[in-house]
This record gives sequence, C-alpha cells and structure tokens, in this order.
Amino acid sequence: MFGGPITVLMVNEYPDYIDARVWAAELKTRVPQLEFRLWPDAGNKRDIDIVLIDKGASPGFFDAMTGLSAVVYLGAGVEGIDLQSFPKGVPLIRLATREQASEVVQYIVLRVLCQQRHVADYMSLQARKSWTPLAPRKISETKIVVLGAGRIGGWAAKLFADLGYDTAVWSRHRKTLPGIHSYIGRAQLADALTSRDYVICSLPLTGDTRGILNASAFGEMKRGAYLVNVGRGAHVNEADLIRALDEGQLSGACLDVFEREPLEASSPLWTHPKVTITPHVASFWMDSGIDQAADLCGQVARGEPLSNKIDLERGY
Amino acid sequence: MFGGPITVLMVNEYPDYIDARVWAAELKTRVPQLEFRLWPDAGNKRDIDIVLIDKGASPGFFDAMTGLSAVVYLGAGVEGIDLQSFPKGVPLIRLATREQASEVVQYIVLRVLCQQRHVADYMSLQARKSWTPLAPRKISETKIVVLGAGRIGGWAAKLFADLGYDTAVWSRHRKTLPGIHSYIGRAQLADALTSRDYVICSLPLTGDTRGILNASAFGEMKRGAYLVNVGRGAHVNEADLIRALDEGQLSGACLDVFEREPLEASSPLWTHPKVTITPHVASFWMDSGIDQAADLCGQVARGEPLSNKIDLERGY
Repeated sequence: MFGGPITVLMVNEYPDYIDARVWAAELKTRVPQLEFRLWPDAGNKRDIDIVLIDKGASPGFFDAMTGLSAVVYLGAGVEGIDLQSFPKGVPLIRLATREQASEVVQYIVLRVLCQQRHVADYMSLQARKSWTPLAPRKISETKIVVLGAGRIGGWAAKLFADLGYDTAVWSRHRKTLPGIHSYIGRAQLADALTSRDYVICSLPLTGDTRGILNASAFGEMKRGAYLVNVGRGAHVNEADLIRALDEGQLSGACLDVFEREPLEASSPLWTHPKVTITPHVASFWMDSGIDQAADLCGQVARGEPLSNKIDLERGY
Repeated sequence: MFGGPITVLMVNEYPDYIDARVWAAELKTRVPQLEFRLWPDAGNKRDIDIVLIDKGASPGFFDAMTGLSAVVYLGAGVEGIDLQSFPKGVPLIRLATREQASEVVQYIVLRVLCQQRHVADYMSLQARKSWTPLAPRKISETKIVVLGAGRIGGWAAKLFADLGYDTAVWSRHRKTLPGIHSYIGRAQLADALTSRDYVICSLPLTGDTRGILNASAFGEMKRGAYLVNVGRGAHVNEADLIRALDEGQLSGACLDVFEREPLEASSPLWTHPKVTITPHVASFWMDSGIDQAADLCGQVARGEPLSNKIDLERGY
C-alpha cells in the first residue's frame, strides 16, 4: 500500500501509436497519486515505482531501479525486453485487451480474404470497366494453418473453421479447438506447413521462434502458399522470403512487421509485386489499454496482486 | 414414385457461373433416370417433371407444363420468377448451402474491413514507399446494421457482434440474436439506419424491398455511412445513390449487384471514385448445390416430400 506519490516512468518510442501525454493525463484522472516522468528524463531511478514501456529496454535500463513494483509492456509481445537481465521478482505485465486481439484477428481475416477474393484484381478490372467474374478458391478446398494459437491465433483459427475452411494451428502445447487440427513443437512444423494454402504467423517472438520462417520452412510449404505475418519481423528471414516468392514457391505475402521498422526505403520488399506491406497496424489502438493500465497502476497503489503477468521462462 | 425417366428442363442464363453440361452429367451419375433438356429446346412441355432455373422465367414460361413436380431455383433469391403466375401446387425450391452462405458472409466482412482498414490507401502508400499508419475507426465506436437477417444476414451480424462491433439487424420479423438490436418493419427502418457507419443490404427482393435504398433511406443514414449491397440490384435506386455519394451523405458504396447485369459500360458507377464494383460474385460457387439438387431430384423420383420450399406468400 502506497501512501504517497507513485512515480511512473514512461518509455514512448512509438509516438505515432501511443501519445505519452494523453496516457499520463488519462491515467492521472483515474489514479491521482501517479506522477509521470518521460524517458530519457528518468530522474533519480531509485524513485521509480512503475515503468510503462512501448518498445524495448536497452541493457542496464533497469539498473538502479531498486524500488520497482511493476513493468507494464504496452505492446503485444515483450521481445524488446531482455528477460535474462530483467530484475528478479519484479512482475512484467502486458496489456492485452479483447479489442486489441479483435483488431489483429480482423487484420488476418481481411488479408486472407483480400487474396482469396481477388480484391486487387477487381480494382484493376473496374478501372477497365471489365465485368469479369474470377473464381475464388473454394472454401472447403482451402487449407489454413495459424502458427501460434494464443488469444489472437486461436481466435482467428476458430473463425476460419466456422466459415468452413480446413484449419489447423501449430503451437508449443496441444490445443483443443473443435474441428481444428493441433500440431505441436518443432517436430510437427513441417506437417503443419505442408498442404496449407495460407500460413498465418501470429507467434510470440522467443528464442525458439526467431527466424522460424526461413528457406527451410518455405520449402516445406505447399507450392503457391500465401504468407500473412502479424507476429514480429524477426520471425521471417526476409532474404529467404524474397527468394521463395521469386521462385514461385510462395504466391505472395502480406507483411505488417519487419526486421527493421519503419521499413527502410531501400528494402526490396516495398516494390516486390507479390508483397503487400502495411506499417505495423494489425493492432493500432491502445486506448482501451489505458483503462487496463489504470487498473494495474491502481493494483500497485493498493498493494494488490497484479493481473496479466508474463511468464519469464516461456517469454510470453 | 416414378418408374420411367424423369425429364429435367434446365434454364441456364448465367453460363459463366453454372455450366449446364457439368450439372447434367453430375446429376445423372447420382440419379440415373434423369433426362435433360436445355432451354430454349424445351420439347414437349407436358413431359417436363423438374425445372432447374438459374435466373428467371418469362410470363407464360410454365404454361403447358402440366406434369411439373418441382421447380428448383439455383440462385439465392427467386425474384426472377413471377410468383403470381407460378403454377398452383408446384413446389418452388431454392438451393442454399452453408458454403454458399459463408461465401456471401465473407464477402460482407471483407468489404467492410477493406473500408475500415484502408486497404486501397495502403496500396497507394506502398507504391510511394510511404510508411504511414492510418487509424482505423475504433471497433467499439463502429456501428453496423444488416438489412435482412436470414441465413446470410443473421450470420454476418453475429460475426460482427462477436468481433466487438455495435451491431443491429433490420428485418420483417423480430430476431433474437444475442447482443444484436433487432429493428422490424418499415416503421423502424429510419431508426435502424440512423447512426450506423456501415449499412449492409442482404435482403430478399420482394415488393416490399424493391427500391428500398433510395434518397429517403440515404437521407436517414448517418452522414458518411458506407453501403455494401449483396442483395439485388433493384434494392438500390442507382441515381439516388450517386447523388448521395456526390453530396457526401454516403462516404462510399461497394456493389456486387446491379439493376442490369452485366453492368453496362455507360454506367457512371464504373468510374465513380467512391464506388467499388464486383461482378455478382459475393456468392460464386454452386458446386455444392449439385449435391443438393441431386437430393431434390431423388426426392421427386421417390415421391418424397421436398426440402427448402419457398413460401410463395412471403416471396422468399
């Protein structure tokens, strides 16, 4: 239980997505004891009770923060934080609202259907005033695998299955989802990939999943498979991806995340005819996260147990 | 119970979508007594036991078909058939598979999300190598109404509601769908339309719904609403729609169906910057319909009661 002020250090590397001043003002109306500092103006690190962080922490970032009660990560994954050197005993929390998950699920469905239902082709045909029905691949003959079957991947898989697609998930632990085949672990990755028309990556980034979408994985996929990546850029070996696209092994890819963001102008992905690029917007809004962050700050203020803790062993 | 051959007259006005020869061959392998005639070569009309029809019947079409056991409509709605002059006592059947409904539901979701998530804008931005996140309208602040709450409209509404959208349906009879507001009848049409960001038309075409999307309805809508029409072209007054778009009352429209199809090259819809056109492909595949048609032909052959009968009073 805190009697006095609670000092919050906010690390805001993505001001296009999260406005630190809005968050500070909104959180203070809900938990008046909060006092905000904005990185890099951390002041005396020993004062800091809570860190709110939207990207990552450099080595040594947490050194001298001896009074830390919680670190709240504002994104969907915590790979920007070195879990090895993370201060022992401090809870690491992630915000994950249903609305945020729904945004990503909708992005996945949208991008599969854009491909399946020829959205770009119909735009060209309309420009030529051409009434030309194009056959979609039949639903019952379309196979989808979702890599990662957490809140987002599991939800997307259930939605695809309900729409009539032959749907599978691949994850670390077996999932019981009605009508959905569950593949588990590295040993079953090739089985999960082969024969699938769409491969969706919604994995957390961990030591086990970094670079998982590489030449070897593309080689296991059905010829002409389409990739959607809403995980992290580092899941994909971009050079291997371009080779697989050029060779026709993959028919296309929709990428929302990249090894380096913003994607550099020099990247060949921008102009690749088989690549669709969006600027890390599968999940856009964090506003409903403000309520959740306020709840967490309130829990710290009242000395209560915290919700949504990350398992530092698993990394998600 | 038929001992001898069963004569099927097939009317195939949409050969791009349904191939009469494929259907005849497939149906004969399942029900060997079937013998096919292809309109306009109807032969002696008194012989005809079953009519399979994919568009409409002109006045007098059924005259002299005195032995008719069933008319099977291969599309989603039966407005091409004059129900007033339809032969009394002959069952009118429609094919409606789950896969076909799913196709249309997916089209609806796709077209709402294309607008919601700026698909066309991101294509332009990618062409300019511009990394520019664009805010989607927040899910919880987006209101959708689906006109028509049958198999397709009801399914789409449930899907939107589950994704977090504020969802309503408007239909002839009250619907009980969890979390979805049900508006009924003409008296509540204005209430159903006002304040909605997306208006989806998935109505059957009847005397009550013909021309329902006209200047008056557009005037009831929220300024900037977006229209998706997967019903019939005749639901929309196209001249009124263009005026509503030009005045900014509607922000855009995605149309899959038109007063005249194929859409004429002279239509101003083709080049309207706020209009997206697809060539009647919300539902594309009828193959799974072959199985269902075979079941119906088998029911006729065995003199059994028929499934999926249209209510001639209601018109759907």
